[in-house]
Amino acid sequence: MRYKITIEYDGTNYFGWQAQPDHPNKGVEDVLKQAIFNLTNENVKINCAGRTDSGVHATCQLVDFFLEKNFEPLEILARLNYILRESDIAILSCEIVDDNFHSRFDAISRKYRYVILNRRARPILQKNRVWHIPIALNVAKMQKSCEFLVGEHDFSSFRDSKCQAPSPVRNVKSLEIWRENDEIFIEIVAKSFLHHMVRNIVGTLALVGKGRLEPEDVKLILQSKDRTKSGMNAPSCGLYFMGAKY
Amino acid sequence: MRYKITIEYDGTNYFGWQAQPDHPNKGVEDVLKQAIFNLTNENVKINCAGRTDSGVHATCQLVDFFLEKNFEPLEILARLNYILRESDIAILSCEIVDDNFHSRFDAISRKYRYVILNRRARPILQKNRVWHIPIALNVAKMQKSCEFLVGEHDFSSFRDSKCQAPSPVRNVKSLEIWRENDEIFIEIVAKSFLHHMVRNIVGTLALVGKGRLEPEDVKLILQSKDRTKSGMNAPSCGLYFMGAKY
Repeated sequence: MRYKITIEYDGTNYFGWQAQPDHPNKGVEDVLKQAIFNLTNENVKINCAGRTDSGVHATCQLVDFFLEKNFEPLEILARLNYILRESDIAILSCEIVDDNFHSRFDAISRKYRYVILNRRARPILQKNRVWHIPIALNVAKMQKSCEFLVGEHDFSSFRDSKCQAPSPVRNVKSLEIWRENDEIFIEIVAKSFLHHMVRNIVGTLALVGKGRLEPEDVKLILQSKDRTKSGMNAPSCGLYFMGAKY
Repeated sequence: MRYKITIEYDGTNYFGWQAQPDHPNKGVEDVLKQAIFNLTNENVKINCAGRTDSGVHATCQLVDFFLEKNFEPLEILARLNYILRESDIAILSCEIVDDNFHSRFDAISRKYRYVILNRRARPILQKNRVWHIPIALNVAKMQKSCEFLVGEHDFSSFRDSKCQAPSPVRNVKSLEIWRENDEIFIEIVAKSFLHHMVRNIVGTLALVGKGRLEPEDVKLILQSKDRTKSGMNAPSCGLYFMGAKY
């Protein structure tokens, strides 16, 4: 049977979805594989909708794997959560899916959220959950920048040098920004993203919010196809993988 | 000069606002007094709008204190935050107020929020920030219970045995409950509260949500003036002091 599970994790203490062999922090994938092995005695291959970087969180990561033995979905849910009780990972749901299902290749869209805490004082209740920017950001200007990024574009200017995607063209279906009190939320939906694309976009939008770029500059940056023109890679702790659609 | 500051804190590692002499965890008040002493060399008496219990958080605690020396409010804000940089406390704002101002006695209303995470899986991103209830709660019934609690009543049934208030009568100005996805928010406003009153009300509302009490039972519990009739004292980690009005 092929199982699809949704999981939440706090990325702070993991080396992202996939671990590096030379890094002491584990990857979320390793911890999950080990938990599945403890439950089933099977070494599974896990497919994942959105492989996150070190420090990035997930409110609804989607993964699938195949088990030789049969388990009730509720049994997997309860027993994996018990095995994972000391980790920063929880299983939210589990269901049996068609054996052809692939959480990575079948996703038609993925959603990320980025959270900025925009106030003088550092985060307390949201420590490791937000990017702290103490300078007041102009959200209206950040919103105006979005229109240049939505749609199909060559996103080379927002692509990490290590990105291995064959094409730099991506189609941003929506990019929304809003403020709630001291928090600024940025939500972006696309079929897929380049490496660090969301965080590089957020770093650039932050420069617009600070007044160091105008919204129209974002259009020029996009057209330049030059990563050195865009803003910094925003910190991983403010980024959340929110889910995928199929 | 008398200064009013607003502060945010994560109550997890403090013994509430006021420490107990025999407990290893400090009180928020002690940490703040020490920080003010480090800055000013003055031993101040701090008044506080809402003294919270161990584990309870504050998004906007209001405190005032008198300093012999003159400081610019922005200087106090920046320097106290620097001194408190390793703590779980941050100063959000600072202003000079009339010397007659008293953050505790002058408050005309106080607001608390309680957050329940209502899903099977334990909290991950909201660890130490919510009360986890895995059984699905009926929010409509919890909402219906509120009408019996709003207004001026003898709240003896929701009063801790250690409560030192001379009267058990309190006036609940509003009590609102709503769900957002897996989270249930309970917000309550009153001029003042009895000891553990908010958490005892939440514990009772949770029984209604679970179907173990009907909304009308809350009326009977209130009328009984008997603490043994109401629900458990809900865990401190789900409670937030949200601010006071003057």
